[in-house]
Amino acid sequence: MTSRTSRTTARATPARAVARTQTLLKGKDGIGTVRRTTLPGGLRVVTETLPSVRSATFGIWVNVGSRDETPTLNGATHYLEHLLFKGTAKRSALDISAAVDAVGGEMNAFTAKEYTCYYARVLDTDLPLAIDVVCDMLTGSLIAPEDVDAERGVILEEIAMTEDDPGDCVHDLFAHTMLGDTPLGRPVLGTVDTINALGRDQIARFYKRHYDPTRLVVAAAGNVDHARVVRQVRAAFDRAGALERTDAEPTAPRAGSRTLRANGKVEVVNRRTEQAHVILGMPGLARTDDRRWAMSVLNAALGGGMSSRLFQEVREKRGLAYSVYSYTSGFADCGLFGVYAGCRPSQVDDVLRICRDELDAVAGGGLSDDEVSRAIGQLAGSTVLGLEDTGALMNRIGKSELCWGEQMSVDDMLAKISAVTPDEVREVARDILGQRPSLSVIGPLKDKQAARLHDVVA
Amino acid sequence: MTSRTSRTTARATPARAVARTQTLLKGKDGIGTVRRTTLPGGLRVVTETLPSVRSATFGIWVNVGSRDETPTLNGATHYLEHLLFKGTAKRSALDISAAVDAVGGEMNAFTAKEYTCYYARVLDTDLPLAIDVVCDMLTGSLIAPEDVDAERGVILEEIAMTEDDPGDCVHDLFAHTMLGDTPLGRPVLGTVDTINALGRDQIARFYKRHYDPTRLVVAAAGNVDHARVVRQVRAAFDRAGALERTDAEPTAPRAGSRTLRANGKVEVVNRRTEQAHVILGMPGLARTDDRRWAMSVLNAALGGGMSSRLFQEVREKRGLAYSVYSYTSGFADCGLFGVYAGCRPSQVDDVLRICRDELDAVAGGGLSDDEVSRAIGQLAGSTVLGLEDTGALMNRIGKSELCWGEQMSVDDMLAKISAVTPDEVREVARDILGQRPSLSVIGPLKDKQAARLHDVVA
Repeated sequence: MTSRTSRTTARATPARAVARTQTLLKGKDGIGTVRRTTLPGGLRVVTETLPSVRSATFGIWVNVGSRDETPTLNGATHYLEHLLFKGTAKRSALDISAAVDAVGGEMNAFTAKEYTCYYARVLDTDLPLAIDVVCDMLTGSLIAPEDVDAERGVILEEIAMTEDDPGDCVHDLFAHTMLGDTPLGRPVLGTVDTINALGRDQIARFYKRHYDPTRLVVAAAGNVDHARVVRQVRAAFDRAGALERTDAEPTAPRAGSRTLRANGKVEVVNRRTEQAHVILGMPGLARTDDRRWAMSVLNAALGGGMSSRLFQEVREKRGLAYSVYSYTSGFADCGLFGVYAGCRPSQVDDVLRICRDELDAVAGGGLSDDEVSRAIGQLAGSTVLGLEDTGALMNRIGKSELCWGEQMSVDDMLAKISAVTPDEVREVARDILGQRPSLSVIGPLKDKQAARLHDVVA
Repeated sequence: MTSRTSRTTARATPARAVARTQTLLKGKDGIGTVRRTTLPGGLRVVTETLPSVRSATFGIWVNVGSRDETPTLNGATHYLEHLLFKGTAKRSALDISAAVDAVGGEMNAFTAKEYTCYYARVLDTDLPLAIDVVCDMLTGSLIAPEDVDAERGVILEEIAMTEDDPGDCVHDLFAHTMLGDTPLGRPVLGTVDTINALGRDQIARFYKRHYDPTRLVVAAAGNVDHARVVRQVRAAFDRAGALERTDAEPTAPRAGSRTLRANGKVEVVNRRTEQAHVILGMPGLARTDDRRWAMSVLNAALGGGMSSRLFQEVREKRGLAYSVYSYTSGFADCGLFGVYAGCRPSQVDDVLRICRDELDAVAGGGLSDDEVSRAIGQLAGSTVLGLEDTGALMNRIGKSELCWGEQMSVDDMLAKISAVTPDEVREVARDILGQRPSLSVIGPLKDKQAARLHDVVA
């Protein structure tokens, strides 16, 4: 179904300028219907309806992240994300924030290595306002020189704040340990040096180059009407003259050819913290890898909850850490798997030995069928529980469209999760956990102790 | 309406042992109906129905917090909260966590100065399991000596982790600055010394004394049936023999007679962090103060969102901080109001001067009617948006029952918020912000700079 506006437009412009709308997922009782419209100009709009709620989350995903930065541009994607809140031809920074604050909405954005997302969660009646504000930010940002300078201070503070959170910045260190000084290995925030060196024109060029409608996915979820959302988004982008290249087609999901090999590196940053913050990890799976369902089950069983192996062995039985968990991050062509723990320096050797032993044991097939089936239940239950949050729904459909170019229903996801067999988990455990690990540590470690850490990855 | 089980019980025991059920709020179309049953034994069960969701959050609130600790017991409430996850006569620690993990639920707990809460969020079909596990933890915890020792390590790690998060622990410092070495002024986690000194028997006595059914409020929200929840809770507590004192009545909401005066103190903890983390604040309002609605509006306008005064003046216009906000915390008899900012040491003087100037300006009546009406819109919108989260609903009804002994409908809350006048905001601003502030700082400040900080509170 195309909206009335788009049909009218279609009559006045060449045939190829017709908006194309598809129902990608049918849903049940109006819940979970996912539709996509591709507007002339190559802009995609996906929505998911959840008529039982009174809220809606509206977001725009951009196919750009810190991975697209050269060394000198490191931090530009995130810097730009901040600058989009600073004003457009029509709105000052205060106008932007006041509009959403006045209706009690939440507006924010996040920048990752492969994408950037801007969103607002509001009452359904305020959705037109959210669409108007977010579309204006994306299409009409001024990037005024004085704002670039004021915001530089804010970014430098954000970098300093992250530095003060060792449990956070050890993840940046681990990316460096595994990926080195490469686009994927560099921090999303950039560094004090790159941020100080970035100029207004560099950022404005970056904006112009990457915020093309063909590289955007608009996503809305909650009590939303697809045709109305499409109409409003189209009008907003039309006003900005952003859909003029009517024959433009959306870009394909990001591809890549990075292969990642286990490197057995150890990187230690000596800092006067109370705890040592460690990540023991290795290459993981790319986002599109078929083994990702088995990997999720493995991750849940190993370090995903209070009943997981690592939580039980490190915290529950021995009281060696407060926070211990495993995680996966998948990119277009490669991925990471890691185990995080925070513990006092005197416990680091014990904690790492236990983590390494568990990785080895699980790589060797040591996960019981019980653990696998509990992990499957955990993933299935939390998937269904996640359906009530319009923010989570918007994230799923937006990211799916941008990164996979397709949508998957919850029923299909549940089927994929439930179909994972203990054998598949054993196989992916052998392939991934069986690799030589690398290690990143931030903490007050003496040289002698730091030297000993090499034994952990031997 | 009493449940069938409770009527049967009533026949077999004295008349006073009948469960009393009231509909406290009627709701609309089945949404937002709040019911309370007081069971014989003095146990309160409150529920709120939201039939449009598939989830339920079940929690138990306990009328005990760090405020109830003597100096030597400091940290016992929170230590005990951890120990309740370690096992009962029927379940090991793994049994407890595996039960909820296996269905994808989230289970956790939090300890505050005046209450403790344990909760699980699950699919509605798994609610009986959540009730069973959480009730078992509350009534049948073993507090085994070996678990006390293992968990001591975990708590010490949690303290160390908090120490590594200066933006978090500056709040503990501010409580100390304002309230000193008193029950309300001491940290919820305790200190390394008190945690190392606490013995199993002290904690077990604390458990026995404070976890009496008369001091508990059971709360459930989501797709729940009140009568069925009451039946299950009653059965679980009956099995533990916890409802035997059939004439016991619930305890009244906590009262107190602490008055708090502005003290103009400055406390600086010198630490080698990247940012200095500051709180500038003063006595606020008790939880039950009638002026709390005007205070919420004031807080939102001053430091509650991106369009707020402090965000605009400190971050948006001058780029001096990434994180800057104001907040209120209310206790039974007193409260705190504070402004937090994190910034590099070289900016501390500027940031504090701006914050102090804004506090003074607003105390002098400088908030515009526009700012007040925007803040009202913000609070109203976010209140309605919060209704979709069964966890937030459970928190509201549980805390209301424990701390106020009554429930307020969303419509009444919205009416209270909307009725706040600019004059009322001006009045509370004058009363609260017009007091002499105190200041707490964690950061790498030289003595000279630290000495200058006294000017800020002069």
